[in-house]
Amino acid sequence: MNKLVLIRHGQSEWNLENRFTGWEDVDLSEQGRAEALQAGQLLAKAGFTFDIAYTSVLKRAIKTLHIVLEAMDSLWIPEIKAWQLNERYYGALQGLNKADTITKYSAAQVLTWRRSFTVPPPALTAEDIRSPFKDLRYAGIDPSLLPLTESLETMMKRVIPYYQNEISPALKSGKHILIAAHGNTLRGLVKYLDQLSDEDIINYEVPTGIPLVYEMDDSFLPLRKYFLRPE
Amino acid sequence: MNKLVLIRHGQSEWNLENRFTGWEDVDLSEQGRAEALQAGQLLAKAGFTFDIAYTSVLKRAIKTLHIVLEAMDSLWIPEIKAWQLNERYYGALQGLNKADTITKYSAAQVLTWRRSFTVPPPALTAEDIRSPFKDLRYAGIDPSLLPLTESLETMMKRVIPYYQNEISPALKSGKHILIAAHGNTLRGLVKYLDQLSDEDIINYEVPTGIPLVYEMDDSFLPLRKYFLRPE
Repeated sequence: MNKLVLIRHGQSEWNLENRFTGWEDVDLSEQGRAEALQAGQLLAKAGFTFDIAYTSVLKRAIKTLHIVLEAMDSLWIPEIKAWQLNERYYGALQGLNKADTITKYSAAQVLTWRRSFTVPPPALTAEDIRSPFKDLRYAGIDPSLLPLTESLETMMKRVIPYYQNEISPALKSGKHILIAAHGNTLRGLVKYLDQLSDEDIINYEVPTGIPLVYEMDDSFLPLRKYFLRPE
Repeated sequence: MNKLVLIRHGQSEWNLENRFTGWEDVDLSEQGRAEALQAGQLLAKAGFTFDIAYTSVLKRAIKTLHIVLEAMDSLWIPEIKAWQLNERYYGALQGLNKADTITKYSAAQVLTWRRSFTVPPPALTAEDIRSPFKDLRYAGIDPSLLPLTESLETMMKRVIPYYQNEISPALKSGKHILIAAHGNTLRGLVKYLDQLSDEDIINYEVPTGIPLVYEMDDSFLPLRKYFLRPE
């Protein structure tokens, strides 16, 4: 029975400061590190093992993965970092305080940007110092693929092909797989795996620090799905 | 100017306990973590950047790499773990106390096992619970490649082909490369890169916590070599 486990990173320093993050490379807070440790300990206690791990190129997901693997005594498994698993790109909202943004635009507008499937936040310009075009880690990537804003829908156009082309073949080769990533990346993956409608995903949220386990059937479609919660 | 930087992991818990380690997967001590942090801070301060990192499948090297990359704010670079970069396999000495082993065999014999280029320590048997044949992380590897003991000479027969086939092509493609590994692995690499004789390598030791920098010429042979030491 092949297993795919999703872990959402926990609290970051900007969650604490109530700021929009997106692709900004913000560190985990102390609580975020504790959430990762809890996830790793739950997986270790339940006897999980993994053959390969995937994460984004953002340190809050990478560090979550390292803490989880260390708790499982599995730091030695291969680890693949992919920009396609990055959090949704939050455009011009990145770095802004959420309360200030609500005051400026309205709670309804900010809720739309956060939860709508199709509406992206205002875009950054490519010249903006915060844009991915100014960040060394994206230097080797076809610029036409790099976003300046993303809706959940447009984000899925990078996340799902990456899953289909890289992760799904590894699952099909018999490997147990761990993905440590972000709230919206994982919402996109769950929407795809569970075939949720554009409306159903709006209020769906993967909890932090709680591994989400998929058991796959012989066709590598989800057979069973459950959360590994503390007792 | 392509750069190759070697980092030897610092003190492990078994260094503290004066035990032979080899492929036993022993953690860094607190001092070992501090040595890794120093190496990362030295590289960050000197303005180094890397495109790809290599390490072994042993946690003392992997954690050293993670601490170094975090200090350089470069956790996002690709990281490749290879059993071929593991420490020399120490055979039946693994886990034994060094002082007890000297009492049992003689100081001269133990020195020979530690420093001779060609003489391996006594071998483990494949059935021994400590052997690599009993460890999940080596399950996918051709058993004929796995050692039950190694001299520095036989160890180099896995380390140097890995360097030639995997790391050197990456250097030649223009990448700056970091290797976080072990005392003997790095002695073997230095012997190869500097074309040292079997006698010259006997007393050569790479210090811990001090990055060893190779600058390569247009033929990707070492042009200049220096240690990055604290001021």
